[in-house]
Amino acid sequence: MKEFIQQQIDAFKENNKNKGRLLISCPDQPGIVSTVSEFLFKHGANIMESNQYSTNPESGMFFIRIEFSCPNMRSIEPSLKSHFHTIAEEFSMDFRFAFGYEVKKTAIFVSKELYCLRELLWEWQNGDLMTNIALVVSNHEDARDLVESLGIPFYFIPASKENRADVEEKQLKLLKEYEIDVIVLARYMQILTPTFVEAHPFKIINIHHSFLPAFVGARPYERAYARGVKLIGATSHYVTNDLDEGPIIEQDIMRVDHRDHVLALKKIGRLVERSVLARSVKWHLEDRIIVHENKTIVF
Amino acid sequence: MKEFIQQQIDAFKENNKNKGRLLISCPDQPGIVSTVSEFLFKHGANIMESNQYSTNPESGMFFIRIEFSCPNMRSIEPSLKSHFHTIAEEFSMDFRFAFGYEVKKTAIFVSKELYCLRELLWEWQNGDLMTNIALVVSNHEDARDLVESLGIPFYFIPASKENRADVEEKQLKLLKEYEIDVIVLARYMQILTPTFVEAHPFKIINIHHSFLPAFVGARPYERAYARGVKLIGATSHYVTNDLDEGPIIEQDIMRVDHRDHVLALKKIGRLVERSVLARSVKWHLEDRIIVHENKTIVF
Amino acid sequence: MKEFIQQQIDAFKENNKNKGRLLISCPDQPGIVSTVSEFLFKHGANIMESNQYSTNPESGMFFIRIEFSCPNMRSIEPSLKSHFHTIAEEFSMDFRFAFGYEVKKTAIFVSKELYCLRELLWEWQNGDLMTNIALVVSNHEDARDLVESLGIPFYFIPASKENRADVEEKQLKLLKEYEIDVIVLARYMQILTPTFVEAHPFKIINIHHSFLPAFVGARPYERAYARGVKLIGATSHYVTNDLDEGPIIEQDIMRVDHRDHVLALKKIGRLVERSVLARSVKWHLEDRIIVHENKTIVF
Amino acid sequence: MKEFIQQQIDAFKENNKNKGRLLISCPDQPGIVSTVSEFLFKHGANIMESNQYSTNPESGMFFIRIEFSCPNMRSIEPSLKSHFHTIAEEFSMDFRFAFGYEVKKTAIFVSKELYCLRELLWEWQNGDLMTNIALVVSNHEDARDLVESLGIPFYFIPASKENRADVEEKQLKLLKEYEIDVIVLARYMQILTPTFVEAHPFKIINIHHSFLPAFVGARPYERAYARGVKLIGATSHYVTNDLDEGPIIEQDIMRVDHRDHVLALKKIGRLVERSVLARSVKWHLEDRIIVHENKTIVF
Repeated sequence: MKEFIQQQIDAFKENNKNKGRLLISCPDQPGIVSTVSEFLFKHGANIMESNQYSTNPESGMFFIRIEFSCPNMRSIEPSLKSHFHTIAEEFSMDFRFAFGYEVKKTAIFVSKELYCLRELLWEWQNGDLMTNIALVVSNHEDARDLVESLGIPFYFIPASKENRADVEEKQLKLLKEYEIDVIVLARYMQILTPTFVEAHPFKIINIHHSFLPAFVGARPYERAYARGVKLIGATSHYVTNDLDEGPIIEQDIMRVDHRDHVLALKKIGRLVERSVLARSVKWHLEDRIIVHENKTIVF
Repeated sequence: MKEFIQQQIDAFKENNKNKGRLLISCPDQPGIVSTVSEFLFKHGANIMESNQYSTNPESGMFFIRIEFSCPNMRSIEPSLKSHFHTIAEEFSMDFRFAFGYEVKKTAIFVSKELYCLRELLWEWQNGDLMTNIALVVSNHEDARDLVESLGIPFYFIPASKENRADVEEKQLKLLKEYEIDVIVLARYMQILTPTFVEAHPFKIINIHHSFLPAFVGARPYERAYARGVKLIGATSHYVTNDLDEGPIIEQDIMRVDHRDHVLALKKIGRLVERSVLARSVKWHLEDRIIVHENKTIVF
Repeated sequence: MKEFIQQQIDAFKENNKNKGRLLISCPDQPGIVSTVSEFLFKHGANIMESNQYSTNPESGMFFIRIEFSCPNMRSIEPSLKSHFHTIAEEFSMDFRFAFGYEVKKTAIFVSKELYCLRELLWEWQNGDLMTNIALVVSNHEDARDLVESLGIPFYFIPASKENRADVEEKQLKLLKEYEIDVIVLARYMQILTPTFVEAHPFKIINIHHSFLPAFVGARPYERAYARGVKLIGATSHYVTNDLDEGPIIEQDIMRVDHRDHVLALKKIGRLVERSVLARSVKWHLEDRIIVHENKTIVF
Repeated sequence: MKEFIQQQIDAFKENNKNKGRLLISCPDQPGIVSTVSEFLFKHGANIMESNQYSTNPESGMFFIRIEFSCPNMRSIEPSLKSHFHTIAEEFSMDFRFAFGYEVKKTAIFVSKELYCLRELLWEWQNGDLMTNIALVVSNHEDARDLVESLGIPFYFIPASKENRADVEEKQLKLLKEYEIDVIVLARYMQILTPTFVEAHPFKIINIHHSFLPAFVGARPYERAYARGVKLIGATSHYVTNDLDEGPIIEQDIMRVDHRDHVLALKKIGRLVERSVLARSVKWHLEDRIIVHENKTIVF
């Protein structure tokens, strides 16, 4: 299986080797688009897609995501990066480049419930998640067979309130060793410490099993049932140190009715959770998301 | 216009004059369905539609909604009602009959925002809300032209925290005078007192402009925007004395994105609010809703 | 894995050993509900859930699905079945009983595209499809590893227009040998002959990758793209001898836009196809579906 | 009422007097974005929002919609337009400018069913359709009171197969006299001749009461019911001379079930039709739609 995935990743790299992405956030002012597009043009890059957004055209922030292509991208990458600094300084930009021949490395954290993990692996096997799933970390053994059957390293790190420090030390060591770009909490039922979170700003994606901000915290389905809601939701968000308060990436819902007891809500909710999480991871891998003031701009 | 509506109502009464509905709540036990259906059969009533639900078949509550028809319904109504009491006692039932030749009288309360009122009047003119809209009450004059143009009495009762008692006294007097069965708060921006609410148990329908329990209370769109949600919702519920905590009748959502500022959220939200409220009123008028433990069973 | 599923199935049988279902279709007339419910009551059965529908209460067809429970169901099953015949004759009913200690045997047919198969196996492993997946039949080898890894027998039967007769002979032999109740075509890309179809009336469920009746036949995504639709759909239906014209069980859609080329439509469509198919199979296994005049009544 | 609308339109013009839109279609090639954005920059215009799309970045078509603002737009309009021609020629562009101080003039055509008309007028009164509804034309008298009550001229032009030529001559005369930019067929039940259609390329918006291409032609609800579909849809499209084959602007659906007979499907469908049509008209008025090869690009 693993070889097949590797082939897909190689094919993807090859097909996209002349494609690049540029994401920019900066104070809005006239001339940004013209300057940036001229810069790319002069480097022989053709803008294939471009999306921008301004919080307030008069005196606000400006955000743009540009997909561009050019022959021999690899060879002009250094020059692109170095020359762009001048522009970035002039307009006080935060920016990042991404290139089609780079593929992000992902770590998936999971506990006993495997349906979100399954969905991610499923999309991945379909070539719908273009990433290298480098390892899966769990505080339970349940996922081992599934993960190893795909040739992905599985690390069992038992976790509890007591040994959180050691656990995270082990985890951080692994993330470093595997040079992880993205961490997906696919129903990982442990709280992460500020140390861990701050080490990965807007790189940790979590799925919460409710339509946030309804039912922040534990046992949302039980509380949804108690409240008698008619819709069940799920929310994916970047993890920050405020529980369930990080920037929302995506949300969706399904209809339920009085017949649906807690177990039914959970089963229905699973369907929403896994599709919401998969979409979010996909968008993150495609560099579609910019975070600003605890909100996401999804291009 | 009014005559046209009256004609529709008369036609509706005529078409449904041999139709009845029976709603029952009681402790679950064997034999309920058989007893009730035999009772109706012996009265010459044919069960056209029947929906039931048990919270827990072993030791829970039982709920059923039956639509039945029989020739000369009007003439058997008294006998139906009197004879059913024996069964009701035997099974300790809460029950109510409704008959096709009865049409509920509705009062709509509104403030300055008219879109929910418009939707209700629109559905009503289409014959989709089979009720007699007997009057509209408002603490503003904005709705007068619209309401009176349809021949519906409009009562302007200015309201404020100070004069709440007098206001509600006037309102209660009107509701009594018009023999109102249902009160719809179509974006009526005043708090009702316990006295008022307790006088109309599960007869007051409110529309809240959020996906409850998210954003309970005031300014939900502003708070939804601040939180950066990706879906905007609306919730209709029966009014109880716990603000926004009454039994939820219906909820729905629409997708929004980072481009949608508060005003856009409001405009999108309006579409959800008016359709959610209209559906709920329709279900209430069709006697589809049973309330149990602060939840609705919608048959 | 297989043992785990077997344990789930055994647990399911045990939990439901005192539950039964009765589905009835017959000409409508007064007294049906009362007669049937009295019948069940006299056999000590308690009606847990009941849904009925009449095409036209005056002179139409009557359909009902009843879930009932009673102690020692197994011991009263024979008496239930034999005594019901009298009622069935009196009201000229088509009917069938189903019992919680019976679990249907399912065969899945698949070709090269595995996402629908994956979804079914996924739901099955979650205990959301209470059936015995007895075998998987394919005209390709692609699914073998996945299927056998779960301990399910996999049969590779190469198929072509030329050898259709032999292929179906082999298939029918297998279906008989495994005493199959339900056949799910999870993207099986071969036409079935009338002989095969007529041998399994309303027991073969197919997923069509469009919102039928739009794009009947081949290459629906290509045609959807050509037409510039804004929604992509999927339709599950029972297989009859009119291609894509069998009774529709379920449909759903997802939003697409001008950016989505054929490949993107296929990827999005997959999500709809697999959830629509899984829901339909679930409903079929729960005996929720009655077919009447090439339409489904889904209770 | 009319004054109120006029005030809103004036306010809208005032608020947007320094805003402009530029829509471009041309063969894709490097340098377009850079050239156009530099052009706008040099005219002192700030790009507020920009969306682009390329059918195929290597050798396809390029489409862009730019919203820009600049002080004294009105005074630079002539220079903008004249100078842009050089660029347009260089890149063989189709393009159009729109300015915030211009408001499109709309004609609504309607027959006996008023719900789509009601929705448009409702959105218009809410300030959600920024257009001047200059007149309503109908082949029936049903809409007169509603339309005239808002101070909008209403023209009754009886139509039939026989007098189509005269009817369209009258209609074309009115459209010319009122300088109409957009024609909305809000359930107008007459076929338009090629002469009429060709006089308004991609300026006539129709609502079809099905999920096209399902149920092209007449009586879609009847046919949807006969086919037993589980979703009811509506489709808005530009009118071309191929019946129901024009470029699709928007589609949406609602869920139905076996209980919903033709009348119910119609009532449910109305809700979809009116929201789909209203969204499409809004997008058209905001210059969000470009037509290419019988498809719409909606920015």
